[in-house]
Amino acid sequence: MKSHTQYLWFSTEDRYDIVNITPQVAEEVRKSGIKEGICLVNAMHITSSVFINDNETGLHSDFMEWLEKLAPYGKHKYKHNLTGEDNADAHLKRTVMGREVVVSVTKGKLDFGPWEQIFYGEFDGRRRKRVLVKIIGE
Amino acid sequence: MKSHTQYLWFSTEDRYDIVNITPQVAEEVRKSGIKEGICLVNAMHITSSVFINDNETGLHSDFMEWLEKLAPYGKHKYKHNLTGEDNADAHLKRTVMGREVVVSVTKGKLDFGPWEQIFYGEFDGRRRKRVLVKIIGE
Amino acid sequence: MKSHTQYLWFSTEDRYDIVNITPQVAEEVRKSGIKEGICLVNAMHITSSVFINDNETGLHSDFMEWLEKLAPYGKHKYKHNLTGEDNADAHLKRTVMGREVVVSVTKGKLDFGPWEQIFYGEFDGRRRKRVLVKIIGE
Repeated sequence: MKSHTQYLWFSTEDRYDIVNITPQVAEEVRKSGIKEGICLVNAMHITSSVFINDNETGLHSDFMEWLEKLAPYGKHKYKHNLTGEDNADAHLKRTVMGREVVVSVTKGKLDFGPWEQIFYGEFDGRRRKRVLVKIIGE
Repeated sequence: MKSHTQYLWFSTEDRYDIVNITPQVAEEVRKSGIKEGICLVNAMHITSSVFINDNETGLHSDFMEWLEKLAPYGKHKYKHNLTGEDNADAHLKRTVMGREVVVSVTKGKLDFGPWEQIFYGEFDGRRRKRVLVKIIGE
Repeated sequence: MKSHTQYLWFSTEDRYDIVNITPQVAEEVRKSGIKEGICLVNAMHITSSVFINDNETGLHSDFMEWLEKLAPYGKHKYKHNLTGEDNADAHLKRTVMGREVVVSVTKGKLDFGPWEQIFYGEFDGRRRKRVLVKIIGE
């Protein structure tokens, strides 16, 4: 069994953002030399997400509006923010979107359906945060 | 390390549907000959889901009602639908339910708790869509 | 390829609870002897969750309040409860929180970001329930 580990760094300009990271992940799969296996991609921070969906900016805007309804920002809305933080909403938003994706590697490539792309979802940005890419297989 | 890849096709009669796919996944585990490893099952479309829950039709109906409250259908409710689509709600619904499951394969079988079953959740059906099954191990 | 399988048992005193299971999972990684690979941790029951977030009790309390808003308890609110159960809300709550996590194992350890910890989320407790830990790699 072979394995390959890489850390990708992101620092978004905005507090909330969605970034297409498919090219970076695909490059790690290529570098791994693995032909058959799986690729794990996860946020290493608990206020951000890695998820798979459509590369369409209208939809990304819908996601952010929807998450704001489900888990609104609010300095005084959450017990977590009594610790001095104001990012409790980010912990909830990332929970809805998910921490990680696991993608099949088939014939040396990410085995995607027609519209699948991997995104980094940031809910408490403007600082350097990491995503882990792990590929195992042969 | 051995690996086994299969694609399952589904075309539901209704726009929204939940289909038990446990027998098909179990059959792929059997065909793989893998005794110890993991099995990834994921929707290849971004308006459908693969999830694990209970095989109880009342609960499935509860899921659909609940998702309609959390992320209601609406041609004019979402920016994504300005592209000509009307399925923005399906992208959100599938996000709540999840894209994929990863299941342990132990002694040649899906290592399930007492009630675990794998379901395909369709939120924009009435056309042919795929699910990927990947098993790796030994 | 090596693999290691373990089952952890939990019986919470309260119906709803969040338990930090990071030490038990880390111990299984150590026992596996695996240096590079992945670790799957999943609830084996469909009314509980395994998720990664912050080890902060205020946030855990926020999670429970938030889930109660998104998917309130109610003996008479759900079709599933016509079967004699009263735990339909637990099926929905666990869906929001997720069934499983997949964590990279790097240099023999769970490859975590600065605040990542693994939790067992219970939404229908007061009875013995299991979590599966599976590590594969080399």
